[in-house]
Amino acid sequence: MSWKALVEEKRQRQAASIPQDWLIKTPPASQLDVIPVPAECGLLSPQELEITDTIDVGVLLRKLASGEWSAVEVTTAFYKRAIVAHQLVNCLTEIFVEKALARAAELDAYLKTNGKVVGPLHGLPISLKDQHRIKGLETTMGYVSWIGQYADKNSVLVDVLYEAGAVPFVQTNVPQTLMWPETFNNVFGRTLNPHNRTLTSGGSSGGEGALIALRGSPLGVGSDVGGSIRIPSTFNGLYGLRPSFNRVPYAGATNSLEGQESVVSVFGPISNSLNGIKLFMQAVIAGKPWLKDPRALRKVWDDDAYALGDHGGGKGLCFGILWDDGQVVPHPPVRRALEMVQAAIQNAGHKVVKWEPFKHKEICTLLPKIWNAASAEDFEAVTSAIKEPIISSMVPSEDDSTIETEVSLFRPDEKDKGISAYQMWQLHKELLSLRQEYLDHWEGTVSITGTGRPVDAIICPSAPYAAPPHGKNWNVDYTMVWNSLDSVACVVPVTKVDISRDVATQREGTFYSDIDKRHFESYDPEIYTNAPIGVQVIGRPQEEEAVIAMAEIIDAALSGFKK
Amino acid sequence: MSWKALVEEKRQRQAASIPQDWLIKTPPASQLDVIPVPAECGLLSPQELEITDTIDVGVLLRKLASGEWSAVEVTTAFYKRAIVAHQLVNCLTEIFVEKALARAAELDAYLKTNGKVVGPLHGLPISLKDQHRIKGLETTMGYVSWIGQYADKNSVLVDVLYEAGAVPFVQTNVPQTLMWPETFNNVFGRTLNPHNRTLTSGGSSGGEGALIALRGSPLGVGSDVGGSIRIPSTFNGLYGLRPSFNRVPYAGATNSLEGQESVVSVFGPISNSLNGIKLFMQAVIAGKPWLKDPRALRKVWDDDAYALGDHGGGKGLCFGILWDDGQVVPHPPVRRALEMVQAAIQNAGHKVVKWEPFKHKEICTLLPKIWNAASAEDFEAVTSAIKEPIISSMVPSEDDSTIETEVSLFRPDEKDKGISAYQMWQLHKELLSLRQEYLDHWEGTVSITGTGRPVDAIICPSAPYAAPPHGKNWNVDYTMVWNSLDSVACVVPVTKVDISRDVATQREGTFYSDIDKRHFESYDPEIYTNAPIGVQVIGRPQEEEAVIAMAEIIDAALSGFKK
Repeated sequence: MSWKALVEEKRQRQAASIPQDWLIKTPPASQLDVIPVPAECGLLSPQELEITDTIDVGVLLRKLASGEWSAVEVTTAFYKRAIVAHQLVNCLTEIFVEKALARAAELDAYLKTNGKVVGPLHGLPISLKDQHRIKGLETTMGYVSWIGQYADKNSVLVDVLYEAGAVPFVQTNVPQTLMWPETFNNVFGRTLNPHNRTLTSGGSSGGEGALIALRGSPLGVGSDVGGSIRIPSTFNGLYGLRPSFNRVPYAGATNSLEGQESVVSVFGPISNSLNGIKLFMQAVIAGKPWLKDPRALRKVWDDDAYALGDHGGGKGLCFGILWDDGQVVPHPPVRRALEMVQAAIQNAGHKVVKWEPFKHKEICTLLPKIWNAASAEDFEAVTSAIKEPIISSMVPSEDDSTIETEVSLFRPDEKDKGISAYQMWQLHKELLSLRQEYLDHWEGTVSITGTGRPVDAIICPSAPYAAPPHGKNWNVDYTMVWNSLDSVACVVPVTKVDISRDVATQREGTFYSDIDKRHFESYDPEIYTNAPIGVQVIGRPQEEEAVIAMAEIIDAALSGFKK
Repeated sequence: MSWKALVEEKRQRQAASIPQDWLIKTPPASQLDVIPVPAECGLLSPQELEITDTIDVGVLLRKLASGEWSAVEVTTAFYKRAIVAHQLVNCLTEIFVEKALARAAELDAYLKTNGKVVGPLHGLPISLKDQHRIKGLETTMGYVSWIGQYADKNSVLVDVLYEAGAVPFVQTNVPQTLMWPETFNNVFGRTLNPHNRTLTSGGSSGGEGALIALRGSPLGVGSDVGGSIRIPSTFNGLYGLRPSFNRVPYAGATNSLEGQESVVSVFGPISNSLNGIKLFMQAVIAGKPWLKDPRALRKVWDDDAYALGDHGGGKGLCFGILWDDGQVVPHPPVRRALEMVQAAIQNAGHKVVKWEPFKHKEICTLLPKIWNAASAEDFEAVTSAIKEPIISSMVPSEDDSTIETEVSLFRPDEKDKGISAYQMWQLHKELLSLRQEYLDHWEGTVSITGTGRPVDAIICPSAPYAAPPHGKNWNVDYTMVWNSLDSVACVVPVTKVDISRDVATQREGTFYSDIDKRHFESYDPEIYTNAPIGVQVIGRPQEEEAVIAMAEIIDAALSGFKK
């Protein structure tokens, strides 16, 4: 069968998996902001809207545990809303209503019979990026070549989530190869941003981002090798955590660049609430993933670290703000978001210092070389049998291709092809050396904080712009640098582009480069209408507990500040 | 300067660094067992013998902390004994008496002035394998090419040890490239086994093993990528721990195969007492190495794990004994050691089951391919400028080279040269798959233990023989398999070869292979006279605390059993 015929067949099966009475009258393409549609479309009952509008995952779990809402009710509500979301922004891949509802019914029966929950995530629907394997389902990961490959067992994280009582209920869209910060592939097409459908949902976990922003899922699992959790979290106005290597189990899932073990992809949560982020991490770690995944860290949830034992107990913290990375200065709305965070933090009694970027250019030049040491062969190995085209641009129309419209960093080019193992070891050495220098740089900030500690966490843009139009997400340096350093990074949403306030401005001083100049001068607030903006809270490797706690402090400070 | 001239110059400097009045009348080469020499040679005073015969590191530390013994007294005593050891077995590389005694005097002054210790290792002399960097000293790592390279700062572990109050006082011999399980190089020559100088001290941390066996150091730091801590620990009758990747900081030290990040070398302690092993790990982890080394795990010492919280509190443990690896059956004395451990464990109220080796052959075939993906280029890059020969055999005379005399596994051959990064990724994938299968195999033992838990730890030979003659250490599969799996492994000494009991026997059943047959039939107890035998206690990754606790249980059971 040709790859196009395979796609046609898969798309028909996907369409058939949607209950016909969950189809809505979709708004015209000219309606850019579709966030209000689920509430207005008439498909969801008032209770279903109440359930899906409950953004605090802790509240959902309490109501599920008490039986106030059954798992079937909650799963049905989110499933209907997910299907609505899909019709608006094309965010889903695998749809398996019957299987999910059967699971939910089992959980309800268990609770009724035993008077207790199965685990800490009892009854919670969880959406999964299209990399996780669920027994009996396909995981195409955006590859036509993988259509028809049905999993004979769950990946480890899926098992851990099932054991915790969760209800995996949909899988979500990704870019082919995963190595793009937007979401488009030959099987399922493109996922749009629900805040403004002319903008990208980001990637590679763009399906998750778009779905959760529409509250079609209370909690989703993305993956991040260069920003793939944080970019969609930010572009869709959500919370998202990039944990350190191997804190969350990856075993049994599909991936790109398998065998690349220097800067690896990690799984992490995306949610409408920080509580969702924390509860996911606690539940997964409580599941002792190191007994199931040979690479998973044996490291229990650390309450002392969450109480900020290494950060003065959370009183009088000192944050470093990275205003720009020394390469490309962010657009005005991103600057305004940083200023809001600064004011909020200071209002809450914490200190702020300027974070000097340190060799970000060197780090962000090096990392793609490591990935691309063999990425061309990797992509070729998957796609060659079926002659599926390898996507070379995220731009919808070919005539719109300029330097600012493509992330070539994520793609192998001629000079990166086929390096030797020895050359790769040399790249690893370079990266380790940069990591050492960055660590020493961070430790050295003890001299400027006045707290007796180095900077507790860094506040950093997630990108130098709000969600850009499709094909225009050209810069991932603001996220990728932290993968290189294995820093824990948590996205906190801050604000949205405000056309009246976020006007184009003149820059003082000189530009870093022509690219910086073109980027800054190209800013036009109309393009970014309604686009969310968030920031990253950056901590040290394996400091998930403390980073979540500091994100909570910043989030609370922002809430207070906005009032 | 030619490489030979450089060697000559370095050897002269080494000889000049030894205080002339510490030279002894060395015994003739025909005296094989030199363990009694330090006590009999007359150089050490009764107090110096008492200090250096104190094998419990905890006792040493208490007497240092109370001021009963000064740091200068303790350092002098161990230094004299180390120099005696060196004259017997050629175990030292860098000798720096003045620097070490100055450091010890500083510690004494601090204790006197402040009435408290500098840190948990206050005043303890620590020997360091010739990879650690100490400011102002050379670290040649057995390479002629690195003679004259003086460190401008300490490696991270050295800093951590200094901060803990330790007194680094000698560096110890290694094989060129480190990738041999014996100890011989072009700079310093060969290190002998003090229990029988015709036998190897093992490697690559052979200098440490020989030195500590002669009680020339109370605690040493080796490194282990395929057995390099455990082989010398076993061959010299010592305790030694292979921690998991990155539990002990490596940053700033020299190494081989830098940039190889799949199965990496780790630092760990070697000592005459298990207490030394534990105190080292506690002190290093208390030093928060993750603030100094970007790869060091952020994982505090876990008292619950040490109390065997994951192993029923240490009551009624179930150990799996690996009698052979399915490839090569160990010689009779190794078998006897395993039988002793089995009886001792059972006497102490614990259970024993047979541990089935699982794909050990596949794992031990794969791992050298990963190292040798670029090892030839790595060695060449170091040695080419000075035309230093790369050592191709550990056999003293060339006419003695048969299959059982070389570990070719540790050396690149033609077919391993110059693989691509993509090929290397495929090897990494194979290894990950094997690690997954092994983990599942281990978890599956819950069905045979009767404890409700999988096997708590595996007891495994460190080699299929006691310390063999120089050039004959041909099999490292018994240690290497655990590096592949990142298992924590602690060596416990058990017994010595007893010529009257460990006679050559007939094997029941068939042999696994010709190699197995030749190995078994070549056994001659005379060759192994007085050679120590130990076993490995194997736990899961990052389970250092529990493995130390289980090693203590086994060690205590053995002591009781011997009485």
